[in-house]
Amino acid sequence: MVKLYLIRHAESEWNPIGRYQGLLDPDLSERGKEQARRLGEYFKDIDIHAIYSSPLKRTMNTALEIARHKGLEVVPEKRVIEIDHGVWSGLLVDEVKKLYAEQFRQWLEEPHNVRFEKGESLEEVYNRVREFLEYVKEKHWGQAVAVVSHTVPMRAMYCALLKVDLSKFWSFGCDNASYSLVHMERDRNVIMRLNITCYLGDLYVEAHKAL
Amino acid sequence: MVKLYLIRHAESEWNPIGRYQGLLDPDLSERGKEQARRLGEYFKDIDIHAIYSSPLKRTMNTALEIARHKGLEVVPEKRVIEIDHGVWSGLLVDEVKKLYAEQFRQWLEEPHNVRFEKGESLEEVYNRVREFLEYVKEKHWGQAVAVVSHTVPMRAMYCALLKVDLSKFWSFGCDNASYSLVHMERDRNVIMRLNITCYLGDLYVEAHKAL
Repeated sequence: MVKLYLIRHAESEWNPIGRYQGLLDPDLSERGKEQARRLGEYFKDIDIHAIYSSPLKRTMNTALEIARHKGLEVVPEKRVIEIDHGVWSGLLVDEVKKLYAEQFRQWLEEPHNVRFEKGESLEEVYNRVREFLEYVKEKHWGQAVAVVSHTVPMRAMYCALLKVDLSKFWSFGCDNASYSLVHMERDRNVIMRLNITCYLGDLYVEAHKAL
Repeated sequence: MVKLYLIRHAESEWNPIGRYQGLLDPDLSERGKEQARRLGEYFKDIDIHAIYSSPLKRTMNTALEIARHKGLEVVPEKRVIEIDHGVWSGLLVDEVKKLYAEQFRQWLEEPHNVRFEKGESLEEVYNRVREFLEYVKEKHWGQAVAVVSHTVPMRAMYCALLKVDLSKFWSFGCDNASYSLVHMERDRNVIMRLNITCYLGDLYVEAHKAL
C-alpha cells in the first residue's frame, strides 16, 4: 500500500480575513509560520519517503518545515495547486457574495457544476488530482508520501480516493496545518484519519466555511 | 446543525486477540479502561447535551467515563449495537478464515452483500443506524450529541451520513476509543474529523483490519 499524508498549508495572510486566493500567492501569516513549525515537529517521528507540494508560497513554506527534519527535498507539484478561482481571486467572501451571488450559491450547493470565469472548473481540478494520485500509487508503492496542498484539491482528492462524485465535495473538514492519512491499498483507499490538528493546541483556528 | 461525536468503545478483552464479538459481551480490558478514562478526560472540555450508547458492556463502560464529568445519563440505544455476527460470534479471525473462508473473503471484498448465518446482514445494520441518525437530527437540532458504538455500525453510519452505498464500508478508519466529529447540517453532513485518538498517547493500538 501507500501511506498518503494529505496536508493543508498553514494559515496564510489572507485566510483569517476570508480572501479568496486561488493562484495568487500570499505567504504564511505569523501564526501560520508557527503552525507550520508545530506540524514539522509532529512529523519528525513519522516515516516519510517523499514530500510533494503545490508550488505556491503557503504550501512550499509549510512543506519545508516537514522536509528540514528529514533531509528530503520538496518536490513542487502543479497538479495539487489550488483551483484557479478566476474572477473571485483576491476578493473577500463578502464581496463575492454581492458581486457573484448566484455563483456563490452554486459553489456551496452544487460545486460539481461550478466553472470559475477566467479560471478553472472543479471538474478540471478533480481530473488533475486523480491523475496525480494514480502517479503516486504507482511510483511510491510500499512507501509513505506527504502531499501539501489546499482546500479545493484536498476535498477533490477525498472524492477521488473514495470514488464518489464531486457532489460530496463539501463533506470533509479541512483546517489549516491539518493532516489526513489515507491508506491506498490495491483495491480500495481507506481514510484512516481526517483533519488532524491536535499538535496545534492554541494555534488552532477553524477554517472558513466557504473557502 | 447537530454536532455528532461518533465514538468507538475502548479496547475490550477480545479486541487484542482478534475474537469476533457481535452481540457477545466481554468487558473492557485493563488497557481499555485506561483508554476510556483518557477519552473521558478529553471530553471534559467539550460541550455535550446527550450521550447515547450501545447497551453492551464495552460501550456503556466507555460512555460512562464521558458521562461522569458531565452530570448526564447514558441513554442505551439498541440501534447502534454491534452487528449480530451470528455463527462467527466468539471465533478468532484465524478460525473464521478457515471455517468460513468464502464468507470471510466476501466480508472484506463485498461487505454490502454479507448476511451472517444466524445473524444480521450489513444492510439491516445500515437501516437501523440510518433511522437512528434521523432521530438524532430531529430531536437534537442545535445540540451536540455523543454516540458510543462499534466498528460495524460506525462504518455504516459514515456511509449513511455521506449518502454513499455500503460498498464503501471499509473506507474509514475506526480505532478503539477514537472519536469522529460530524456536522449534520440541513442539506448535508460534513465529516469534520475522523478517527481522532491523539489523547491516547502510548495506549493507542491500531485496530485489527478485519474486525
